[in-house]
Amino acid sequence: MSNTKLVLLRHGQSEWNKKNLFTGWHDIELSPEGEIEAIQAGKVLKKNNFKFDYAYTSFLKRAINTLWLTLKELDQLWIPVKKTWRLNERHYGKLQGMNKDEITNKFGIKKVQKWRRSFISEPPSLSINDPRWSRFDQKYSKLEDYQLPLSESLSKTLERVIYIWKNSISSKIMNGERIIIVAHGNSLRALIKYIENINDADIINLNIATGIPIIYEFDNNLNYKKKYYLNN
Amino acid sequence: MSNTKLVLLRHGQSEWNKKNLFTGWHDIELSPEGEIEAIQAGKVLKKNNFKFDYAYTSFLKRAINTLWLTLKELDQLWIPVKKTWRLNERHYGKLQGMNKDEITNKFGIKKVQKWRRSFISEPPSLSINDPRWSRFDQKYSKLEDYQLPLSESLSKTLERVIYIWKNSISSKIMNGERIIIVAHGNSLRALIKYIENINDADIINLNIATGIPIIYEFDNNLNYKKKYYLNN
Repeated sequence: MSNTKLVLLRHGQSEWNKKNLFTGWHDIELSPEGEIEAIQAGKVLKKNNFKFDYAYTSFLKRAINTLWLTLKELDQLWIPVKKTWRLNERHYGKLQGMNKDEITNKFGIKKVQKWRRSFISEPPSLSINDPRWSRFDQKYSKLEDYQLPLSESLSKTLERVIYIWKNSISSKIMNGERIIIVAHGNSLRALIKYIENINDADIINLNIATGIPIIYEFDNNLNYKKKYYLNN
Repeated sequence: MSNTKLVLLRHGQSEWNKKNLFTGWHDIELSPEGEIEAIQAGKVLKKNNFKFDYAYTSFLKRAINTLWLTLKELDQLWIPVKKTWRLNERHYGKLQGMNKDEITNKFGIKKVQKWRRSFISEPPSLSINDPRWSRFDQKYSKLEDYQLPLSESLSKTLERVIYIWKNSISSKIMNGERIIIVAHGNSLRALIKYIENINDADIINLNIATGIPIIYEFDNNLNYKKKYYLNN
């Protein structure tokens, strides 16, 4: 593995993916199928001789568990792991916990597509009294209220993801550290948009497979060169 | 939980404990029984409403896995975890991988007891060409040779354990952070010797149960007040 590679991995199926619910910041477990996806990702990385010096993941257990199962396969549980809310899934506001089909029937496919895929559109916000707001969750107790979203566009998600990229991840890659990031559909879409410099319109078409490592290659100045899925 | 408590946990049974082999820095898995011990520790902590802000463990997977299973039961996988070689088990030198009964037959019970329990006695050293030396293990690649033991007395183990206590753990406890340390029989004996100020002769008699959380209580200046096992 050259020093200018980066591995991204989207967590496998969660219990709410399975039930077709909007998840966002809701902290739900991987499904048994999702666990198998994670183990498989570890096996493929091992087969291809990947080793890591440092890992990033979110505050959400479906990502943390995916990373764990991957590192266990690689026999690399000892590497440092930075867990950060900045890599959390996009916040889905009031839609969290709701069935995707029901929401589509209620609001129409066009509106829901926009909420789900466009760069600047934002689902309806939680109220600040909503028990689903992260203010009431111990894991966010060190954050200020203004940092805790009530809903997010992909654009807002990108801001917080790029913060950790600029302030931590990118310098480690430049220093030759071999990094794996295990995160979520939209936090990874945000990062990829930034890395590949994809424009706001085209990002709508980007979908990321779950449980399959994506390998990014950079030049020595961290300019994007190419990417590919590691399938076997 | 008051701000001046600390939880210590010795990992559960490993595959080599089961086979009655000296383990030391050899990185062996927990046995299935050891995994159950870890889950049980998590259940007991949860039942007693323990929450943590920060965790420490060693570079060895039997401890890392014990911590993981404990935090999973507590639904606290998101907390930061510092993994450090300084909390590794005592290095057992040439004895690593050898059967405890065979060694006792060969060297006599008196000598073996001394290697195992006394404060200053050190088992026979590895040679620097021995493939078991940690110099040949990726996880220690950032360490200098002089930091990588070829064998250790409990006294030497204590030096490296107290380094992380003085430079990191103690200040976090003083800052009110709720800490759990998951480590090994002898790295925990070393820490306990220091915390309780046990003399070199008496430490021989200290044995720590596996998989049962030990709760330490301190006054506001981190002076030791009392300890107890959390059994149920």
